[in-house]
Amino acid sequence: MKIGLFDSGVGGLTVLKALRDKYPEVDFVYLGDTARVPYGNKSAQTVIRYSLEGAEFLLSEGVDLLIIACNTASSYALDVLRENFSIPVFGVIEPGVKHALDTTKNRRVGVIGTKATVSSDAYGRLLRSKGIEVFQKACPLFVPLVEEGILNGDIAQRVVEYYLTELKDKDIDTLILACTHYPLLKPVIEEFMGESVKVIDSAESTALEIMPFVERSGSSSLSLYFTDHSPSLNFLIELILGEPIDYKLLTLPCKV
Amino acid sequence: MKIGLFDSGVGGLTVLKALRDKYPEVDFVYLGDTARVPYGNKSAQTVIRYSLEGAEFLLSEGVDLLIIACNTASSYALDVLRENFSIPVFGVIEPGVKHALDTTKNRRVGVIGTKATVSSDAYGRLLRSKGIEVFQKACPLFVPLVEEGILNGDIAQRVVEYYLTELKDKDIDTLILACTHYPLLKPVIEEFMGESVKVIDSAESTALEIMPFVERSGSSSLSLYFTDHSPSLNFLIELILGEPIDYKLLTLPCKV
Repeated sequence: MKIGLFDSGVGGLTVLKALRDKYPEVDFVYLGDTARVPYGNKSAQTVIRYSLEGAEFLLSEGVDLLIIACNTASSYALDVLRENFSIPVFGVIEPGVKHALDTTKNRRVGVIGTKATVSSDAYGRLLRSKGIEVFQKACPLFVPLVEEGILNGDIAQRVVEYYLTELKDKDIDTLILACTHYPLLKPVIEEFMGESVKVIDSAESTALEIMPFVERSGSSSLSLYFTDHSPSLNFLIELILGEPIDYKLLTLPCKV
Repeated sequence: MKIGLFDSGVGGLTVLKALRDKYPEVDFVYLGDTARVPYGNKSAQTVIRYSLEGAEFLLSEGVDLLIIACNTASSYALDVLRENFSIPVFGVIEPGVKHALDTTKNRRVGVIGTKATVSSDAYGRLLRSKGIEVFQKACPLFVPLVEEGILNGDIAQRVVEYYLTELKDKDIDTLILACTHYPLLKPVIEEFMGESVKVIDSAESTALEIMPFVERSGSSSLSLYFTDHSPSLNFLIELILGEPIDYKLLTLPCKV
C-alpha cells in the first residue's frame, strides 16, 4: 500500500520516520508545504484550503491512506478531509491523546507544543472531556533549536529546563509532545522530566493508531515533495530521516 | 517633521527606539507587515512589491522621510523606493556599513544576521568593495530568543557563545549587528566579544545617518500599525520600546 503524509513543513518528517521504522514494506509519499509554513498563525479557513490542496495532490499520487502530520492542520482540517475523501484519514492529535489516556495513572497530563497549538486548546479540550487534568506549556524555542540541529548538550538542556520546570512541579505522570518537531528533543526532555513521567510522542502514537489499516506492499519507495526550497531543507531531511534523500519541488494549484 | 518606518515585523522597532531616543521632538509612524513576515525567505520581486505597498501607506500618512527598518527590504527595495518617491529614503545596511568603516582600525569586520541576510551577502559585498576583510555568521536562534524575551542570563550567554566563538578567533575589531532584532542582545554580545571588539548597532547608525535631514516638529506623536495580530505583539512592543503602546491593525491594499 501507499501512505500519504501532509505537513506544513519538515516537522511531519518525524511521523514519516516513525512510520517507516514500523512499516518498512510500505510505500510513502510526503508533502511539506514549506512555501506557506507555518500554519499556526493562519486562519482556520486558510489552513483547510491548504490542507485540501495538499490532500488532493497526495490522492493523485495514488495513496490509500492519508495522515495529516501537522498539529494545526489536524486541528482544523481533519473533519473536512474525512468528508471529502473516501480513503482513511488520520491526524496526529487523536492518536497522541488516546495514547496518553492509556498511559496516565494519576490522570494528570502535560501538553507541550507551539504557541498556536497550546492556545488552540485542541489537546486540552479532548483530554478534559475524558476527565483529565491538563497542564499546557508553549515552548517557542524548541522548533528553532531542532531546526538548528541542537538536539542535545548544554543549550538544549537549559532550554528544556527553562520551559519544563513549571510542569515538573505539577505532579503529571504523562507528557504529550504536541508538536511534530519535538520527538527530536525527546531524549533531553525525558532526562529532564525523570522516570516518573512517560513522554508520549505523537509520531509513534500515530504509527500505532493506523496499524489496523496497514498492508505490506512488498516495496518500500519514498517520494518527498516540498512546495519551496529552504536553505536548511537537505540538512533537516537528513537530520530527521537519518539519511540524505532527494526531494522534488511542487507547485500546488492555487484555488483562490 | 514626521518620520515613517517600514519593517516586515517587530524587529524595526529597535530602529524606532533609537530614533525616538535621539529625536524626541519628532513625529513617527511605524508599519510592521506581520501578516507576511518574514521577508528573508521571499523573492526580490515580492519583497519590492510589499515594500512599495508599505511605503505608499506611510506616504499617505504624510511622512517627510522614510526608513526601511528591515535588512531584507533594504537590500532589495531601497533603489526602487528612492526612484518612486521624492522624499529622502534610507535603509539600515548603508548606515551600519559606514559606521563600521569609520570604526575599524585593522580592517577586519564581522557581520552577524539571519541566514537570509548572510547568504544575500549584502553587507559583505559593500564592505569588501572598500577593502575590508569580512567574516560573516548566521545566528538563527537570536531572533526567537529575543521574541521570547530571553535577553540575558545563562541561555542567552550560551547561545551567543555557540555562534560567536568562531568569530572571536578571527581577530576582528568591529562587529555589525546586521539584524534589527539583535540590538536587544547587544549587552550579552559585547560582554562575550570583549573590549577589543566594537559592536555596531544599525539602529543607532541609522539614527546618526539621518541627522542632517531631521527637523524638530515640536510634537512627539507615535502611531504603530501592524498588518496582523500575533500573540506576542503587545509583549514585544513593550519589550523593545520600553512602554506599552497600542497599535492599529492595517489591511494593505494588495496590488496583484
